[in-house]
Amino acid sequence: MRVLGIDPGLTRCGVGVVDVEPNRTAKLVDVVVLRSPADLDTPNRLVRIADGLEAIIDEHRPQAVALERVFARSDVSTIMGTAQISGVAMLLAARRRLPVALHTPSEVKAAITGYGRADKAQVGAMVARILGLEAVPKPADAADALALAICHAWRTGGVAGAAVTDASAPAPLARTTTPAQQAWLAAERSAAVSGAARRLKK
Amino acid sequence: MRVLGIDPGLTRCGVGVVDVEPNRTAKLVDVVVLRSPADLDTPNRLVRIADGLEAIIDEHRPQAVALERVFARSDVSTIMGTAQISGVAMLLAARRRLPVALHTPSEVKAAITGYGRADKAQVGAMVARILGLEAVPKPADAADALALAICHAWRTGGVAGAAVTDASAPAPLARTTTPAQQAWLAAERSAAVSGAARRLKK
Repeated sequence: MRVLGIDPGLTRCGVGVVDVEPNRTAKLVDVVVLRSPADLDTPNRLVRIADGLEAIIDEHRPQAVALERVFARSDVSTIMGTAQISGVAMLLAARRRLPVALHTPSEVKAAITGYGRADKAQVGAMVARILGLEAVPKPADAADALALAICHAWRTGGVAGAAVTDASAPAPLARTTTPAQQAWLAAERSAAVSGAARRLKK
Repeated sequence: MRVLGIDPGLTRCGVGVVDVEPNRTAKLVDVVVLRSPADLDTPNRLVRIADGLEAIIDEHRPQAVALERVFARSDVSTIMGTAQISGVAMLLAARRRLPVALHTPSEVKAAITGYGRADKAQVGAMVARILGLEAVPKPADAADALALAICHAWRTGGVAGAAVTDASAPAPLARTTTPAQQAWLAAERSAAVSGAARRLKK
């Protein structure tokens, strides 16, 4: 399954595309950080990012889009830009009839490293490891976008459209997985904790 | 000048179109409240509202778009939907090369009633009065959208594109008006306070 992951932002918007096989191996297709200059007005910054997102969607034709679920944070100006970009990304995806799933940062960290409070370096290192890359994708927005895409494929068991969740849904995993997927995910979590994540913490 | 005012929201999005003459008289062109059902997923709710906005833009061909400037509020789920819709609205307007201006609720109230802390009933009554309507437009989102459109035309002196402001700009009025416009606006404010707004408070 091909997933487009988006770490939404007005200044830097991380975009990653991965192919994930049913056996959970993942391959990097593309990764880019879209940018818009802070001295441009907001409407035209949104156009810049939207144009970039559409170009990537049209080039790589993902089967699903995974977005970071945005929460209120202390910096109001940042959260507004992030929410605006996530609205734009959802619109563009839905108009192409692509399923959109939202994952929280801790869901992504748990899926990728086995630990919901992993730091950015741990997530980046695991993304590089999972995709067989020689270096950690930089900046962090790029690694985060790839982590989102991998997280989505793994959490849905590689079934496109399985985790189409609403922005207001409290528990997307519980709503959208079958008992078999849950068992698989539970096994994955324990494997990740005992294996890869522990190695990272050495 | 023809202005499209948008009171952004995911459940109810007020949209009003007004024609405002250089002598400041204003005429209602259209007003509608776009809705999306709460049980639809967010991406498709955004599509519903976006489709409605585009239809109105294409039908009435406004020269400028005025949006409510969104601030952080207590209800996080509401502000996220509002920010997402405002991002979508800005994108659609900017892609049509329409200038987008943001006005705060208190700027709108001050422009319309002469009092920045006017309540919804006062704003609605003044909107009806300005546009020569027999009844106050309902729901409040409709009146608020019309108030935004009138406010924009008045604050810019009826010059399309004069108040193209950034979402992060602290003082759009000071940045975009000429001394003559400022004098005009000051006269308008004192006239509104001594005249219409006082009558409303009787």
